Amino acid sequence: MKRIPVILDGDPGHDDAMAWMVAAASPMLDIKAVTTVAGNKDIENVTTNTLNVCSLFGIHAPVGKGAHGPLVVEGITAGDFHGKTGLDGADLPPSDRTLSQYSAVELMVRVLEESEEPVVIIGTGAQTNLATLLLYRPDLKEKIEAFYIMGGGIETGNWTPAAEFNILVDPEAARIVFESGVPVVMSGLDVTEKALVYPEDVKRIRSIGTPMGDIVSGWLDFFGETHAAMGYEGWPLHDPCAVLSLIKPEIFIIKDAHLQVETKGLHTRGQVLADFEDQERFNGKAVLDLDREAFIDELIKAVEHFNGREELI
Amino acid sequence: MKRIPVILDGDPGHDDAMAWMVAAASPMLDIKAVTTVAGNKDIENVTTNTLNVCSLFGIHAPVGKGAHGPLVVEGITAGDFHGKTGLDGADLPPSDRTLSQYSAVELMVRVLEESEEPVVIIGTGAQTNLATLLLYRPDLKEKIEAFYIMGGGIETGNWTPAAEFNILVDPEAARIVFESGVPVVMSGLDVTEKALVYPEDVKRIRSIGTPMGDIVSGWLDFFGETHAAMGYEGWPLHDPCAVLSLIKPEIFIIKDAHLQVETKGLHTRGQVLADFEDQERFNGKAVLDLDREAFIDELIKAVEHFNGREELI
Amino acid sequence: MKRIPVILDGDPGHDDAMAWMVAAASPMLDIKAVTTVAGNKDIENVTTNTLNVCSLFGIHAPVGKGAHGPLVVEGITAGDFHGKTGLDGADLPPSDRTLSQYSAVELMVRVLEESEEPVVIIGTGAQTNLATLLLYRPDLKEKIEAFYIMGGGIETGNWTPAAEFNILVDPEAARIVFESGVPVVMSGLDVTEKALVYPEDVKRIRSIGTPMGDIVSGWLDFFGETHAAMGYEGWPLHDPCAVLSLIKPEIFIIKDAHLQVETKGLHTRGQVLADFEDQERFNGKAVLDLDREAFIDELIKAVEHFNGREELI
Amino acid sequence: MKRIPVILDGDPGHDDAMAWMVAAASPMLDIKAVTTVAGNKDIENVTTNTLNVCSLFGIHAPVGKGAHGPLVVEGITAGDFHGKTGLDGADLPPSDRTLSQYSAVELMVRVLEESEEPVVIIGTGAQTNLATLLLYRPDLKEKIEAFYIMGGGIETGNWTPAAEFNILVDPEAARIVFESGVPVVMSGLDVTEKALVYPEDVKRIRSIGTPMGDIVSGWLDFFGETHAAMGYEGWPLHDPCAVLSLIKPEIFIIKDAHLQVETKGLHTRGQVLADFEDQERFNGKAVLDLDREAFIDELIKAVEHFNGREELI
Repeated sequence: MKRIPVILDGDPGHDDAMAWMVAAASPMLDIKAVTTVAGNKDIENVTTNTLNVCSLFGIHAPVGKGAHGPLVVEGITAGDFHGKTGLDGADLPPSDRTLSQYSAVELMVRVLEESEEPVVIIGTGAQTNLATLLLYRPDLKEKIEAFYIMGGGIETGNWTPAAEFNILVDPEAARIVFESGVPVVMSGLDVTEKALVYPEDVKRIRSIGTPMGDIVSGWLDFFGETHAAMGYEGWPLHDPCAVLSLIKPEIFIIKDAHLQVETKGLHTRGQVLADFEDQERFNGKAVLDLDREAFIDELIKAVEHFNGREELI
Repeated sequence: MKRIPVILDGDPGHDDAMAWMVAAASPMLDIKAVTTVAGNKDIENVTTNTLNVCSLFGIHAPVGKGAHGPLVVEGITAGDFHGKTGLDGADLPPSDRTLSQYSAVELMVRVLEESEEPVVIIGTGAQTNLATLLLYRPDLKEKIEAFYIMGGGIETGNWTPAAEFNILVDPEAARIVFESGVPVVMSGLDVTEKALVYPEDVKRIRSIGTPMGDIVSGWLDFFGETHAAMGYEGWPLHDPCAVLSLIKPEIFIIKDAHLQVETKGLHTRGQVLADFEDQERFNGKAVLDLDREAFIDELIKAVEHFNGREELI
Repeated sequence: MKRIPVILDGDPGHDDAMAWMVAAASPMLDIKAVTTVAGNKDIENVTTNTLNVCSLFGIHAPVGKGAHGPLVVEGITAGDFHGKTGLDGADLPPSDRTLSQYSAVELMVRVLEESEEPVVIIGTGAQTNLATLLLYRPDLKEKIEAFYIMGGGIETGNWTPAAEFNILVDPEAARIVFESGVPVVMSGLDVTEKALVYPEDVKRIRSIGTPMGDIVSGWLDFFGETHAAMGYEGWPLHDPCAVLSLIKPEIFIIKDAHLQVETKGLHTRGQVLADFEDQERFNGKAVLDLDREAFIDELIKAVEHFNGREELI
Repeated sequence: MKRIPVILDGDPGHDDAMAWMVAAASPMLDIKAVTTVAGNKDIENVTTNTLNVCSLFGIHAPVGKGAHGPLVVEGITAGDFHGKTGLDGADLPPSDRTLSQYSAVELMVRVLEESEEPVVIIGTGAQTNLATLLLYRPDLKEKIEAFYIMGGGIETGNWTPAAEFNILVDPEAARIVFESGVPVVMSGLDVTEKALVYPEDVKRIRSIGTPMGDIVSGWLDFFGETHAAMGYEGWPLHDPCAVLSLIKPEIFIIKDAHLQVETKGLHTRGQVLADFEDQERFNGKAVLDLDREAFIDELIKAVEHFNGREELI
């Protein structure tokens, strides 16, 4: 089987880390580069976390440090939602990875230039690097198969009533990505708020009994506590949806759509609007629902993929 | 039983007319004034229609002509959605009603000043008159029990993906109304797109066999055709929800909310946002669902209320 | 000579008070009402000041209390720029005036309805009342000869680099006024920043030796101190320009213009833009320059008008 | 004398061409690259013109093709203001120049990386390339001495009453440039509308009697006609101010300022606001006035620089 070349761009973050675990565990993907972007935490934190999780999951692709803030406006971060480091909850072994000499977008350019077939870019943070790539080298659009992103939410927001965090961080970047002509497959809150992990799921993962099972369940415990404090019973694993909608689309409901990003608005900046009728303007797909049980099974399969590879940890 | 004093403000329009029929048929309401506002059609058309339907339904309250356009911006109308007159589909008998010497807002002021108890204002058009009233006589807020309005939509729009027509016509007015401190009970598209009339319902109404049954089923046939052309199977009777949520709240799902109107936004001007969590900021209620069968029964009861009152027609 | 009927609407404030002194002293004007609007201070303060200065200047027109804040947005005030009372610097005699039973806009409506000839409205505060009048009774536009206002500034702002205070307080109201079709004669910062009073002018006024001269020079001393603290050598008497451009246009440079108000903008909300070319869109006039010596002479004439009328004070 | 390394970025356009003539003629400048951006005409036209004028002026630096439109929004062009080619009015000899394999921003990156000392970027078009450079390689800011740009206008606009064309084309890009921390020296309409060429000046240039004199006076005749049609008596040579304010600052009035770009606004999008007071926020300089005679002398010196170099033409 031919593997799909992918670039992973994100801001780990617990759910970014788990998304990348799923990617690393999949035989379908060929990870060409991992790139970072400020968001859940500042660029230094998320880059450190990225080096750590790449080491943990045995991802050997080069790691490029990306944008320290949005294209046009001031940045925001997710506070201590992911803990002080941005990835609290488990002690990770020391990383064996170092940063590439190339920045995030430089790495993307090199991967796209060298790849013979189109590359999928999986974005689980703000779209700042993606937009910068498109601005810097619009000619490379033809080398991008699609953007699979976690972001947005058609029927709801989370950071504001209208906007989801990843889009709200850099709405101008999102607009550039969505209007680029490259298809966007958007896993927004519509699906990710249904991608819930419950305490019994965490128990299943811990009971795998491996070091990786311990680490992942430690993360989930931490992430669960910050969510429980907000009244959640299960907690949403947003970012793995972006990866799984690519490698396991059959467990999702996915619909063609015209997706637009609001960049203005007093209350609606960062909102994503979807029109499912106007076929001629369709520019992507919205992932709307999922088979939750199957989703959890995929997570567990990914944890188990690392059984017996204790050298990683 | 003590009747609730109400002012009916709207832009008929088929569903405004049916809302007012329900109000006129109800023993619970005491209609103090009927006022008009540009929207579905221009102010001349909707005022003529208002005089006609007041005559038809035996509403003897004074009729005041209102705003010919929004507070700050240019107006829009609903085109020929309601036909050339704004109320096509049935020949109405000549009206015996004439316009009050007082404008819409002047009438509202007089009603509020004279009323001993607080008045409910039922708004089924743009909120221009309501906002002007609040600007002109903020001291009269204490005489307004609530605004029961048809407008907005939390999960969807109709005129744009984000905005419903009545709010989009005059978002600044809506913002003034929603932020006035007077409670707003909002029947938005969330409920009104479920307040569907099907051909078999129209058959039931026509089979009543009275002149009023003929007129109402004629309207519904016309309204149904314009909707069928857009792919609807049943067609939504938006405005009656605003009246029925007041007099028959038990057939609706209604939830306390903080409601905000977006006045800016490239794609979201006129959107209404709801927050159901932040109790301290609650400024109204959103009507979210209904018992459709019971809703149709109420319509039919209203038509039958006029049985044997052929002198009206 | 036939006198021009005028309504004075403002938020005194030292320069409003002096504008009204000039109006009261002029044989050309027939003051029909004085109305107040929040701005320099809150509505209670400016209304108290209004009653005081009407008493002081022998203005016997009814005084109506107006809007406590802008049409759509939250209000701002000018802090302690005009002192704690909004009119610090002189002890005024007790007022013999009481508030009308009618609000500001109600009074305006009555004046316009009763007047046989068109009335000039002189606005030296935010345009909230003026806009509310236009929204409430658009039919009365034909009874308004023009709005003579202090506000805006084509080449500069004061409260922000782009916006002048009176317009910034309520840009939506200003937009309604400027787009109403009633001519606007705008004394903006272009002229008012040149309407400077210097210490030697204050000396001239004090040397008149009357109680009125003492009061006015007391105000000017206070106003001068707050300006001197900001680096001004002379201090601008904004509001009298609005009155004098009506009764003494020959001492000003006045130019036909298309005037527009920016209501959006990150940095430019409240800015007034002028186009002096597009004649077909002209909707008013911009006052651009003045003969400063003649302007001071008019002020002094106004103070001297009250010589020998000690009963006022 | 050590020459200043510069990159010329623009959209020729008559005045871009003349700006580059002045740069090519100056012994003070070392032109490292010439880059193009859509604006006066589409990217194909302005790139062709760039190759032509580089050949004409003997500029041997590589030429990189840049952005075909703004960062976030749709593009606009200056219509036929510069004629059909964007540089009508003179027949140029065939160009001996070809496009670099590198795009505009790639070239900029290479120049900055290779340069031992900071480079000045002279921008006479929209700031799209400049912003993309800053987004792509923020680390290279330290290699940029300053941006010398033609754009904006503090007291006036040209394309709208508030906005000048170069900024209006891409306000988000301009905002990124102005907020980058790299000093911006802005030759806006404040100075460039005073950089007027009169028919007698054109006569002086033509009378030089060289092929270059003929070409430049041909351009000026053409540019003069399009301006005369709009009522200008002299016509403004905007872009040469950006070059001359660098190499001949003594003929200009230049003032430290805090410069901000409005990206929103109904009437003010693309406006540049200046604050000359708040020293702590100063981020550049505004060029405000010039010695017009000296300016013309510099132009003529530049034309004469090419005397005897007929091989260029």
